[in-house]
Amino acid sequence: MKFTCQKDALQNAINIVSKAVSSKTSMPILECILVKAEDGGVKLTANDMEMAIETAKIEAEVKEEGTIALEARMFSEIIRRVNGEKVSVSTGENNSAVINCGFSEYKIMGQPGDDFPEIPSITKQEPYKIKQKDLKNLIISTIFSVASDESKPTLTGELIEISEEYVNIVAVDGYRISYKKAAAVSSPEPAKVIVPAKTLKEISRILLDGEEDVEIYITENHILFDMEGNILVSRVINGEFIKYDQAFTNEYKTRAVINRSELISALERASLVSRDARKVPVKLDIHPDNIIITSQTEMGSAYEELNTQTEGDELKIAFNPRYLIDALRAIEDEKVAVQFNSPLSPCIIKQEEGEEYKYLVLPLRM
Amino acid sequence: MKFTCQKDALQNAINIVSKAVSSKTSMPILECILVKAEDGGVKLTANDMEMAIETAKIEAEVKEEGTIALEARMFSEIIRRVNGEKVSVSTGENNSAVINCGFSEYKIMGQPGDDFPEIPSITKQEPYKIKQKDLKNLIISTIFSVASDESKPTLTGELIEISEEYVNIVAVDGYRISYKKAAAVSSPEPAKVIVPAKTLKEISRILLDGEEDVEIYITENHILFDMEGNILVSRVINGEFIKYDQAFTNEYKTRAVINRSELISALERASLVSRDARKVPVKLDIHPDNIIITSQTEMGSAYEELNTQTEGDELKIAFNPRYLIDALRAIEDEKVAVQFNSPLSPCIIKQEEGEEYKYLVLPLRM
Repeated sequence: MKFTCQKDALQNAINIVSKAVSSKTSMPILECILVKAEDGGVKLTANDMEMAIETAKIEAEVKEEGTIALEARMFSEIIRRVNGEKVSVSTGENNSAVINCGFSEYKIMGQPGDDFPEIPSITKQEPYKIKQKDLKNLIISTIFSVASDESKPTLTGELIEISEEYVNIVAVDGYRISYKKAAAVSSPEPAKVIVPAKTLKEISRILLDGEEDVEIYITENHILFDMEGNILVSRVINGEFIKYDQAFTNEYKTRAVINRSELISALERASLVSRDARKVPVKLDIHPDNIIITSQTEMGSAYEELNTQTEGDELKIAFNPRYLIDALRAIEDEKVAVQFNSPLSPCIIKQEEGEEYKYLVLPLRM
Repeated sequence: MKFTCQKDALQNAINIVSKAVSSKTSMPILECILVKAEDGGVKLTANDMEMAIETAKIEAEVKEEGTIALEARMFSEIIRRVNGEKVSVSTGENNSAVINCGFSEYKIMGQPGDDFPEIPSITKQEPYKIKQKDLKNLIISTIFSVASDESKPTLTGELIEISEEYVNIVAVDGYRISYKKAAAVSSPEPAKVIVPAKTLKEISRILLDGEEDVEIYITENHILFDMEGNILVSRVINGEFIKYDQAFTNEYKTRAVINRSELISALERASLVSRDARKVPVKLDIHPDNIIITSQTEMGSAYEELNTQTEGDELKIAFNPRYLIDALRAIEDEKVAVQFNSPLSPCIIKQEEGEEYKYLVLPLRM
């Protein structure tokens, strides 16, 4: 194998596949990136056996076709730090690779490309399409409420539901439900699939913020995302996802419209009177024109007053402030609506108008 | 105690004293900041028993004089996060303090101010003076070569030598010596003192980059730095510092003048062919017009070529690249001179011209 390409293009491709490189594994080849030079270009692949990423072809002058698997960290650091516009990579004896760039020459020991695990093959039907920025947003706005506990495997992923017009994503961890929807660009038929949280986290880092589409192919055991030729294939989680839709009732006894960033700041401050800020419950005292937020520990107490527009009954209710802050950060609008029924029933957080984002959280007993 | 002051001024003062708050201690009061309101202002103090910091007086409207010790982390986080221009602090029953700012009210439990350890009293004679930015620079350029091993206590600090015209600082760790000097603004008489590295690290974070002076007072057991009224008092290390001056010989058999940042990059890259970049020796092959830098491990090999102007003999010599990089980062000029005598004698790194900065490092046996 022997090729020359732009250093920046190679570095960018390494950054993309790095997300599927195993960091802890008993199979050293999974810590490698597969480099494959073929007619007209070079492709990189990484595979941690849960998900695999293969880049689009990088333009390269290929003098000799071939493959080699190179330890990802070292390969990536060398390419990142060498100084020059173009870089050449060629294979030598004993599965070594020589990297040349400017006045630098690096030789690194690799493994035969043939030993690298194949990525699952997916028969491509007509794809689902959604804007890359929309899918990114769906993931970022909900992923924090995926269950970390492995006892209910389906809850360690997010449910993606595709209808004719919409793509919904849902994450549930036993204390709360995050839901967000966006328009589908193209949907051949309705579909439901549970995708592991790790896959979604990594894909959200590859997705662009622009108007480009991502194409999605779903099979019984796999899901494939195609982002301008960069391909990510992941296993899916089999099983029934929890029925979440009835939980989002539209009835409420109290509804408060609040400035989102003021509420975040007040909750963060009220969490401070403790050695472990994640363990202080905060109490909300909802009045017609304001909310009083208080918390109390053996170390001190906090009192915060926020203006609101409230309809309905006055109410006292307590929460883990972290669970409120997560949802408030996921909303883009500056005003949020918070709906309550009683001190012990779930509270629902939404945008002031619209149903794109919905979040349900259980209160704490006071 | 009861006062009102600008939030920003109080936050700034907290940032300064925080550097002397103990993080691990069996005496909880050392995790506190002492707040003292007196005629016309407020002072904060922290003391970890190795060093103490007392701020200049913050302008405040003091309604009632008094003191209280408040847990540093919580006090600091609350002041940082409350929203408002002015903040009021007052003491209540059972050593509590109430903090008011905007629509927020925080009550935190404290300890009696009288329990807080006194800072050592220093009889002030005529001070030594040096520009704050110069002292900062002296510390940053040398502190990395202080010994971490406690077996030679004097080497866990830096030697500060003040003559009529200069202030020198020296750090020695058994493999290398860092030396830097700057002009003294005022020096009543020659002095030598060994200051613990931790003190110097913290003081370098308080010192400003401007032309202001720092005043220094030295007694048998303590050193006091006065930066515009913010005072840091530290113990000094008693004992004889190593005789370092003869080590810096001006004789050499080989002298190479090299571009500093190119050399840093080449050394960093050459360290990459290993799982632990700090453990790869690099070999320097010094020719009349260039230096070849190589390294080799079971994982691969590196080859780098750098242009130089060399006088004297050709030479092969090996180093821990980390030790070269530390010194190269400490030099501000773009060209550096590296002087060698033999593959087993120390190498000296300097600016191309001038003697303000000198660094000596032992080679590795090849």
